[in-house]
Amino acid sequence: MVVELEEHIKEADQKVINDFLASLGYKIAEVKTQKSHYLIAIGKNEFDIRKLGNKPGVMDVHRVSDEYKLVSRKWKAAPTIIDLGGGISVREGGFTMMAGPCSVESEEQISKIVDHLVDTGVPVLRGGAFKPRSSPYAFRGLGIEGLKMMYRIAHARGIKVISEVMEISQIADMFDYVDIFQVGARNTQNFNLLHELGKVDKPVLIKRGISGTIEELLQSAEYMFMSGNEKLILCERGIRTYEKATRNTLDLNAVPVLKEKSHLPVIVDPSHGIGIREFVEPMALASVLAGADGVIVEIHEKPEEAASDGQQTLNFEESGMLFKKMNDVFAMKKSW
Amino acid sequence: MVVELEEHIKEADQKVINDFLASLGYKIAEVKTQKSHYLIAIGKNEFDIRKLGNKPGVMDVHRVSDEYKLVSRKWKAAPTIIDLGGGISVREGGFTMMAGPCSVESEEQISKIVDHLVDTGVPVLRGGAFKPRSSPYAFRGLGIEGLKMMYRIAHARGIKVISEVMEISQIADMFDYVDIFQVGARNTQNFNLLHELGKVDKPVLIKRGISGTIEELLQSAEYMFMSGNEKLILCERGIRTYEKATRNTLDLNAVPVLKEKSHLPVIVDPSHGIGIREFVEPMALASVLAGADGVIVEIHEKPEEAASDGQQTLNFEESGMLFKKMNDVFAMKKSW
Amino acid sequence: MVVELEEHIKEADQKVINDFLASLGYKIAEVKTQKSHYLIAIGKNEFDIRKLGNKPGVMDVHRVSDEYKLVSRKWKAAPTIIDLGGGISVREGGFTMMAGPCSVESEEQISKIVDHLVDTGVPVLRGGAFKPRSSPYAFRGLGIEGLKMMYRIAHARGIKVISEVMEISQIADMFDYVDIFQVGARNTQNFNLLHELGKVDKPVLIKRGISGTIEELLQSAEYMFMSGNEKLILCERGIRTYEKATRNTLDLNAVPVLKEKSHLPVIVDPSHGIGIREFVEPMALASVLAGADGVIVEIHEKPEEAASDGQQTLNFEESGMLFKKMNDVFAMKKSW
Amino acid sequence: MVVELEEHIKEADQKVINDFLASLGYKIAEVKTQKSHYLIAIGKNEFDIRKLGNKPGVMDVHRVSDEYKLVSRKWKAAPTIIDLGGGISVREGGFTMMAGPCSVESEEQISKIVDHLVDTGVPVLRGGAFKPRSSPYAFRGLGIEGLKMMYRIAHARGIKVISEVMEISQIADMFDYVDIFQVGARNTQNFNLLHELGKVDKPVLIKRGISGTIEELLQSAEYMFMSGNEKLILCERGIRTYEKATRNTLDLNAVPVLKEKSHLPVIVDPSHGIGIREFVEPMALASVLAGADGVIVEIHEKPEEAASDGQQTLNFEESGMLFKKMNDVFAMKKSW
Repeated sequence: MVVELEEHIKEADQKVINDFLASLGYKIAEVKTQKSHYLIAIGKNEFDIRKLGNKPGVMDVHRVSDEYKLVSRKWKAAPTIIDLGGGISVREGGFTMMAGPCSVESEEQISKIVDHLVDTGVPVLRGGAFKPRSSPYAFRGLGIEGLKMMYRIAHARGIKVISEVMEISQIADMFDYVDIFQVGARNTQNFNLLHELGKVDKPVLIKRGISGTIEELLQSAEYMFMSGNEKLILCERGIRTYEKATRNTLDLNAVPVLKEKSHLPVIVDPSHGIGIREFVEPMALASVLAGADGVIVEIHEKPEEAASDGQQTLNFEESGMLFKKMNDVFAMKKSW
Repeated sequence: MVVELEEHIKEADQKVINDFLASLGYKIAEVKTQKSHYLIAIGKNEFDIRKLGNKPGVMDVHRVSDEYKLVSRKWKAAPTIIDLGGGISVREGGFTMMAGPCSVESEEQISKIVDHLVDTGVPVLRGGAFKPRSSPYAFRGLGIEGLKMMYRIAHARGIKVISEVMEISQIADMFDYVDIFQVGARNTQNFNLLHELGKVDKPVLIKRGISGTIEELLQSAEYMFMSGNEKLILCERGIRTYEKATRNTLDLNAVPVLKEKSHLPVIVDPSHGIGIREFVEPMALASVLAGADGVIVEIHEKPEEAASDGQQTLNFEESGMLFKKMNDVFAMKKSW
Repeated sequence: MVVELEEHIKEADQKVINDFLASLGYKIAEVKTQKSHYLIAIGKNEFDIRKLGNKPGVMDVHRVSDEYKLVSRKWKAAPTIIDLGGGISVREGGFTMMAGPCSVESEEQISKIVDHLVDTGVPVLRGGAFKPRSSPYAFRGLGIEGLKMMYRIAHARGIKVISEVMEISQIADMFDYVDIFQVGARNTQNFNLLHELGKVDKPVLIKRGISGTIEELLQSAEYMFMSGNEKLILCERGIRTYEKATRNTLDLNAVPVLKEKSHLPVIVDPSHGIGIREFVEPMALASVLAGADGVIVEIHEKPEEAASDGQQTLNFEESGMLFKKMNDVFAMKKSW
Repeated sequence: MVVELEEHIKEADQKVINDFLASLGYKIAEVKTQKSHYLIAIGKNEFDIRKLGNKPGVMDVHRVSDEYKLVSRKWKAAPTIIDLGGGISVREGGFTMMAGPCSVESEEQISKIVDHLVDTGVPVLRGGAFKPRSSPYAFRGLGIEGLKMMYRIAHARGIKVISEVMEISQIADMFDYVDIFQVGARNTQNFNLLHELGKVDKPVLIKRGISGTIEELLQSAEYMFMSGNEKLILCERGIRTYEKATRNTLDLNAVPVLKEKSHLPVIVDPSHGIGIREFVEPMALASVLAGADGVIVEIHEKPEEAASDGQQTLNFEESGMLFKKMNDVFAMKKSW
């Protein structure tokens, strides 16, 4: 059960509520986010919910039986809007394109990509400064200096930046140089990292785990939400299955399911999802109609020379065409 | 290697070709389909392919290293067109909608659905007469009488019929009452059944196995092709994964992969694929942009009263809307 | 609910029982096996079960809520014993080794293997006469003549024979030349085949599907049981997962689970299960302690020359050692 | 390629080696572990390996084409021995039992368990002080104070301690109170954590990821090894599959595969692996014969009252019996 409290609830009123719930055998977790103040009550005793709703200091009460509460649509039907400033947002009813290289490599690389984003109307630049790699012998990214450079070039042209954070100690360093923190698939259940990101006043995009369930993704978002951060974006990026004809199995089924279960916006990453360049376009287009609120796509001026993930990266011509088509599809969808 | 022979090749010429291949250590499978005459040569010795191409009686030669040969686009680049008569076909460049109930239940049921198909421009009726069921205690269908009734009502209105065949002995009984035989996911590797369907002069739609790979689906199609039947349709219907929020994981990634690997048309079954009524529409729409050549959807006048699979079945209002939207999307796609 | 009826129940008594169950809203399936006579009643209404147990003609009644009934241990706690004659059986409390080549190839091959089985105390010979193959261009076996030869050589030495049946039409041909029919992983849900095998008075070993659940395996066994055949053996043979370091993922977890859920004996196939020769021994030995009632192992005099599956086949020295160790382990287990 | 250097190699000699490899197009990673000094050379050019082996300062050279190098048996055939002091070790040729509660709960709980371990000859106590939980509302452990208490009680009786580390910041706090750090399945690809654990002079047991491949587990171990820590233990703990009859699918196949590919010892966790109390014993026993060098088992005086994971936890009677049987099986295995 989720109980939303009034902003300036009196201590005595809150004690009454706590005692009432405790007397019914409920365990209580108090949650203060950047936007609001909640009690999460965990228990099973039946009682007339109006007895709680009538108490002074209570704004709203909902029963939510899911393992996640605050990110559930049962609690909050209105979709969450992630405002990135400058008229750019991630939200239901919009379609936000994010694109950029797998790894930040050089100023020239980033400048050309930012020009391309401006030309094609893509408002958010992605780019990895810290790269998680299965093999310890693979390229691990330019680090914080790469991020600063990317941020400087992008912001000079009004483009927002999303980049992956891998470790608690990077949060403070990265804070001033990202508009959205990204949590990668290997860290989706790094609960300490999630807890710290919950304290940060900046949006976080969290990817589904490599073989994470839809419920686990929502529980991981709940971790951040209950630590204080409501500005969350969910991202489907492909799951691990027995099928090896594609890098991962992009699970577009997750899109309508997540949209129904949660009020958070949902983004699709077709590049990692299918992992093969010539199939990124059909899967990206399909994402729009599956109900995604945006996509995040890997692009590079010369994919064959990219420091990582070139085999799933679009060049400028391919991506320019894709952005145009996605806009067409989204416009048609809005017209229905 | 695939060698296409001239229609009336002389026996002596064919012997020369056989001897030539045998001398190089190749094993030869001779394939006569309803359309053509092939030699499939399995082996690894290198030789100048022109020495074979020049021989009398040889029309065409291609190296195909896949485990499947005749269904590969490496052999035949031109897409296969499945002509159902009456101006109806399944083919690349078209989008063929198929719809109907999970199980044939009654004349009234079928009549109403056929009216709905005519009204909404859907040319093919699906309906199960023989039902494969995991539990021996579940409803197993009306059998051949149900199929005859369905065929009669549909054909009276110009609608074609697709229905599942589960067993060799049913092929002859069903032959006059289907326009397309359907092979279900549990029979995708029932090789004896495939062999017999290969001898039949009627299109066959084959579903991907419950946890079948893309390659296995193509190999199963190859079984039918090499037994003589070139009129084959591939169908993605969801695979089994660890994710239980949906009935199956509809693998739309398979669509562009199959389209690239094979010249056969590819259909998507979103109803079984995701298995939850409210999510069928987004996945069906996404299928169009993933590159499918059609869909097969479960519909029923009153899904809540359906004898089977009601939880994934659309009613007439929902399906009418979906058919219209799919046409819109396909028209936009053609315009690009 | 399972109701076991007396052997010569009077028609009038049975009608009373049927009417009683129908009046409670139960649907009834009547099952006559080679051993007994049952009613399977499907429904949910609560009632005092003694009212049914007291009726004339009723021997026993049990509530069984699983999707499978007659193969459940909730119905029949005593383990099923499969008597093969000649003092050989498959059963809980015993450990039955089965071994032989993937494919029957020649008289010489079979003679040498039978000698080896006799020498090492293995009572059952396996060998494929009809081979299901994913690729239509692979070796498909010697057919019925191979089976007859295998049966003749094995029976001359007191060895029993198990071989795979792929198709209804093969049942009659094979009947006189097998002691156990084997249903392969690709046919586990070939319900028409199961139905026909249910009418046969000969044991059937059924393998778990390639990605079959434990529950589906039990439901498939139920199909045969309710068609009349109680002489069933379950076989774990590895499932399909994302892990590609092994051919399949032999799921030994299934062994204790199946043993708890069903009264049928459970056999393990480590050869297909892990699919790599040097790892067959550890997995076979582990199977004994996981609780298996036997194993079925691929052996060949010269695995590197086998017509199929050589990479997972043990030679005589390896298999002789393995048989001895399995006996040691089983003896220790019995001593606990 | 792995090049082991002499302990006090001259700078000039090392430069010669570096230049030689660079001239062949190899990239070089220099690795100094607590035991030795290596160059890892990544490249593909062919050359006579003796030209490198002959150079001053080179102790040994091996080609290792795997994605992991230093943990490979191709590099180091001799098994790694993890010496815990007090005559206790984890190693091939031994069988080390580890047992304890999922979560540390109280002094009384730990004291009773330690008594039980001493009585039954189990040398290592497991117990979670920091608990990773999918749901933010679940019990998260007693923290560092719980660990200190556990360590004090265990060491007073000569028992070693293993406990999970979730976050870099915990390493220093935990260092004095564990004999083995444990990396949980959700952190197997937390590369920053692995990097830091590589700098620690204490054994680390790393679990396979929730859906991690065998190769990924070895690559994760390689991360720690190349950061300096050679005292590594691999642990199979069940993978995620479609099968839901068990909590996870304990993949015993991984045991012989890991033992062949790596020189590191391999432990099995049957408790998380199958996740159901009555099936822990058969899977633990099976692990011994699959080739494991030890097990880690969850036990509790009263599993039904455990703060977490009670459904997969053995009581003292059950675990005492299991320890005895595992010793019997291991003794038999050694006798072969």
